[in-house]
Amino acid sequence: MTNKSYSVTVIGLGAMGMGAAQSCVKAGLTTYGVDLNTTSLEKLKEAGAYAVSQSSVDFADKLDAVVLLVVNAAQVNAVLFGENGLAEKLNKGTAVMVSSTISAQDAKEISQKLTSLGLVMLDAPVSGGAAKAAAGEMTVMASGSKQAFDKLQPVLDAVAGKVYNIGEEIGLGATVKIIHQLLAGVHIAAGAEAMALAAKAGIPLDLMYDVVTNAAGNSWMFENRMKHVVEGDYSPLSMVDIFVKDLGLVNDTAKSLRFPLHLASTAYSMFTEASNAGYGKEDDSAVIKIFSGIELPKKGV
Amino acid sequence: MTNKSYSVTVIGLGAMGMGAAQSCVKAGLTTYGVDLNTTSLEKLKEAGAYAVSQSSVDFADKLDAVVLLVVNAAQVNAVLFGENGLAEKLNKGTAVMVSSTISAQDAKEISQKLTSLGLVMLDAPVSGGAAKAAAGEMTVMASGSKQAFDKLQPVLDAVAGKVYNIGEEIGLGATVKIIHQLLAGVHIAAGAEAMALAAKAGIPLDLMYDVVTNAAGNSWMFENRMKHVVEGDYSPLSMVDIFVKDLGLVNDTAKSLRFPLHLASTAYSMFTEASNAGYGKEDDSAVIKIFSGIELPKKGV
Repeated sequence: MTNKSYSVTVIGLGAMGMGAAQSCVKAGLTTYGVDLNTTSLEKLKEAGAYAVSQSSVDFADKLDAVVLLVVNAAQVNAVLFGENGLAEKLNKGTAVMVSSTISAQDAKEISQKLTSLGLVMLDAPVSGGAAKAAAGEMTVMASGSKQAFDKLQPVLDAVAGKVYNIGEEIGLGATVKIIHQLLAGVHIAAGAEAMALAAKAGIPLDLMYDVVTNAAGNSWMFENRMKHVVEGDYSPLSMVDIFVKDLGLVNDTAKSLRFPLHLASTAYSMFTEASNAGYGKEDDSAVIKIFSGIELPKKGV
Repeated sequence: MTNKSYSVTVIGLGAMGMGAAQSCVKAGLTTYGVDLNTTSLEKLKEAGAYAVSQSSVDFADKLDAVVLLVVNAAQVNAVLFGENGLAEKLNKGTAVMVSSTISAQDAKEISQKLTSLGLVMLDAPVSGGAAKAAAGEMTVMASGSKQAFDKLQPVLDAVAGKVYNIGEEIGLGATVKIIHQLLAGVHIAAGAEAMALAAKAGIPLDLMYDVVTNAAGNSWMFENRMKHVVEGDYSPLSMVDIFVKDLGLVNDTAKSLRFPLHLASTAYSMFTEASNAGYGKEDDSAVIKIFSGIELPKKGV
């Protein structure tokens, strides 16, 4: 079913945003795309976007919905409320789906500002990786009013394989995503620790990978990310610095709830150490490079 | 294909041993079973075992192979070399498959003693959980001589879905299993940390479980064990104390290799704390009970 009378702009065309925008195109929505990267804009235009631009305000008055998939809360705030900000230019009642991973506190503050401008917000972080995003099968963990869910239904239908309605309160979606990232981050760091220990013990890493992925020690992240270690390929799909940010949010959340974090605080230190050692822009599996005295597989060897 | 002329005894009829023994019966091997627990012996006898006993020496001279699935190295040593020990009574050339999780050092020492008695050992830890054991589909990570692999082929065919030949050196199998347990233990502890944080943040745990198991934060252990937390059922399938032991072996292994463990040392502390708090004999998911100030689901509520 196409729905050309419904217009949506996706802001932030990284791995997840590009997939989400392409899914909106495929679903027949009139789709706009915004990013600073012109290559990404061209790619989305070729995929069938109605229009693309480096500025989010160009289509402001034509939109039913805005999907934000920029990197962090600072970027969400800059897009919406910064100089030449989008929020003031949107028609009243436009739905804003904030899908970046941000803190519950930031989600609440953004929602208050949007509400004061007559806009509705869905606190709607996503997961699933680039492949699921491209297939329109992201997992969306959302909280917000019935009005927000209803208004964004065409977008959710287009981009999501599964939508969790966590409740009305803005911030619940952000919290569920942050707890999810606790697991994702710890699993990558644990995979790195295990593979580094295997290297130190003289176990071939391809064999160790094969054993784990066929046994109860497996995780989604181990299977996906430790493949990069086995292949010696640290081209970034998701970067070390993303987990410095996300595990930082996990720690902020725990602090605000006065809750002790044994493993996630350690995993945060591991990613931060990797970033400080110069690996911040590499694939997040490069956290394994904090371990010295081991030899890791090289690309193409 | 049945092979009644091949005789094997399985020693230690816990979740994994019972499954292995039943798989040997199903494969048509003449199967003996040994355990101190008479209920387990009766269960295996009913399943078609040729004979069962509380003493491992009763069938010693009739065996082609011995499979050891007792809890730890101390028990392996007691069975083989203790008072009225089995090893001296086995025919020369009998194959001993040591499938308990033990250190590489223990595996090497046991192998030396067996070799001096004219016996052959396969260092062959297993994984997969009770369901895979019952189905004859365990994952076996084995090291040893070609002679040991050949002699145990009928047993491996019967019990394993996948056999990894890691090399000739005794101890490699043990090391791979221990590194696997690093991941398994950290994943359970991380699952507990995440679910406890969700409880503190007011997120319904069944919803948190559902989100994670449909997203990239999932692990085999999260999906399997956090279900027990959601259901409030800590009936032990594998106990907290097993991970106090196994993560202790991980730490011993790292120490012997002079390798730093960031996450596994923390997970060890979490399981040890849970055991000291009185939860050692509960399901390993009870590690979540180290977190105070949260309300967890109760069984049947």
